[in-house]
Amino acid sequence: MRATVLHGRGDVRIENVPDARLIEPSDALVAVTRACICGSDLWPYQLMEPVETARRMGHEAIGVVEALGADVRTLKVGDVVVMPFAYSDGTCVFCQEGLHTSCVRGGFFGTVEVAGAQAEAVRVPQADGTLVALPVGADDALMPSLLTLSDVMGTGHHAARAAKVGRGKTVAVIGDGAVGLCGVVAARRLGAEQIIILGRHPDRLALAKAFGATDVVSERGEEAVARVRALTGGFGVHSVLECVGTDQAMRTAIGVVRPGGAVGRVGVPHYEAIPASEPAFYNNVTVGGGPAPVRAYIQELLPDVLEGRIEPGRVFDRVISLDQVPDGYRAMNERQAIKVMVKTSSR
Amino acid sequence: MRATVLHGRGDVRIENVPDARLIEPSDALVAVTRACICGSDLWPYQLMEPVETARRMGHEAIGVVEALGADVRTLKVGDVVVMPFAYSDGTCVFCQEGLHTSCVRGGFFGTVEVAGAQAEAVRVPQADGTLVALPVGADDALMPSLLTLSDVMGTGHHAARAAKVGRGKTVAVIGDGAVGLCGVVAARRLGAEQIIILGRHPDRLALAKAFGATDVVSERGEEAVARVRALTGGFGVHSVLECVGTDQAMRTAIGVVRPGGAVGRVGVPHYEAIPASEPAFYNNVTVGGGPAPVRAYIQELLPDVLEGRIEPGRVFDRVISLDQVPDGYRAMNERQAIKVMVKTSSR
Repeated sequence: MRATVLHGRGDVRIENVPDARLIEPSDALVAVTRACICGSDLWPYQLMEPVETARRMGHEAIGVVEALGADVRTLKVGDVVVMPFAYSDGTCVFCQEGLHTSCVRGGFFGTVEVAGAQAEAVRVPQADGTLVALPVGADDALMPSLLTLSDVMGTGHHAARAAKVGRGKTVAVIGDGAVGLCGVVAARRLGAEQIIILGRHPDRLALAKAFGATDVVSERGEEAVARVRALTGGFGVHSVLECVGTDQAMRTAIGVVRPGGAVGRVGVPHYEAIPASEPAFYNNVTVGGGPAPVRAYIQELLPDVLEGRIEPGRVFDRVISLDQVPDGYRAMNERQAIKVMVKTSSR
Repeated sequence: MRATVLHGRGDVRIENVPDARLIEPSDALVAVTRACICGSDLWPYQLMEPVETARRMGHEAIGVVEALGADVRTLKVGDVVVMPFAYSDGTCVFCQEGLHTSCVRGGFFGTVEVAGAQAEAVRVPQADGTLVALPVGADDALMPSLLTLSDVMGTGHHAARAAKVGRGKTVAVIGDGAVGLCGVVAARRLGAEQIIILGRHPDRLALAKAFGATDVVSERGEEAVARVRALTGGFGVHSVLECVGTDQAMRTAIGVVRPGGAVGRVGVPHYEAIPASEPAFYNNVTVGGGPAPVRAYIQELLPDVLEGRIEPGRVFDRVISLDQVPDGYRAMNERQAIKVMVKTSSR
């Protein structure tokens, strides 16, 4: 089958690889109909060291169940399923607490253990706990928004939860990538009164406003902090969604949050440390977040997608075939595309 | 009047200073009957730079109201009052949210603006919002425990709240100083099932056990992390109370908290940064805390003190007069005393 392989910095290829197949009795084999390129895929695309082994990329997908291991109970062949970016058994102590990304039998797609989903098919471990069957056909018009439930919408929602967004709150969303934009959707959905998006790309900011952002701040660093404070009576915001993962983004987050407020961070951290003292400590700022347990959020978000109350699928501004994936990486890396959908309909 | 003045490293003196007096109409003048030496006083005692101005020390006190500014409404001369370590107006947006340490008209005792409480008397700004009248006489047997409401008991409680301690939770308390010991009291009070104290001083650990600690870990660094994990089924604890403020303490906190858990930090941070990535991010660890809004907690904790359900005053293992304060600093600095009470009864 064909699949996406990252060989080094900027060197991503579509290659013929051995067919995905069932290995464990709890596996499902899923024919991928939709996959994505993720902002987090750009980190290895930019930074991969020459000594690293080639990586099978992709961790977001919708597909059709082709085969099931003997132990799978809740799925059947032919089901249209959404695949969270992490697999999880759904039964361990952490899954029961809703933290599926810490499942004791879980892990991540696109790793050495489990191949990626930018491919014609993917093996899904712990299928019962991982996959969610969708009540729609594989070509439903809602596919883009449903596909965001595999990562970016759930991740934006996780940032909002970790940042304690609630009714009437003031919110800053740092980053106008797909996760930041979904963070705007999530903040609006949770009742935020003021949503300030921090970003610099006019097309993305326009979408942020369509999603419910009330203010735009395009300054950076200290100037951004000053602007957000000016927009919030001098105090800063109750909640910050840090959706970038750089040192500057985290410093800005700590700078714009008001005393007693919370930062929800979901950008994979490419910084060493969180500033500890002024103002985070003295302002009693809480910092939370991490890899989103998107599996836990699908049940909550799915009805809003199915009934059209949220449309996170609007973050996709380019649809490509599997063969075009290298172009897709380039487009996202050069900020020509917000988020790229890969349509894989050869099977 | 006599007061405590810090002149430099290890150089603390009792001196004659101008009498404390009312300045603002919202002030109270309080004759101090009990004060304390605080673990946080030891930081400037150890680190004060030669160029710094002399500091009037002390931020914990119980006393008797001697005079009131014209605007004070809720207190009367002769009231026995407990003084939180921060003053606050009780009415601003942050005070209404229970975060009195961020009061827009607030501040701290023992600073350039407001003199310290290790003295015969202290001026208390924003008296209505700051002071709490106690329903006891100035020499009541409960004085030690009541005095902890001005800082250490409220601070331990704040750490527990920030660490999301609740019924049935597993808890680690890092630090066996007075705040850590009060953290044990707070964790027990909030229903924690397992309370692991990390410390190395036998007398303090004995008190921690009397307060409800179930386990003691005296290792440090990686060994401490391994021990706590071994005591908690390999996963770590739900809640960590970081009551020290050093880099090692924060690293240990991040190391022993379980996925999805929370660290409540109340030790004044003498570290630059919080480790950001592994494991804090990947484990979805929340870090919160800061200066405790002890004023907000007095109403909640006072009944338990008055009715003897908690006895945080047992942290005081030395009682001295004002003239003996330099010895008190030495004793605390050399870990010969857990916490020192200063009895000031000359007026």
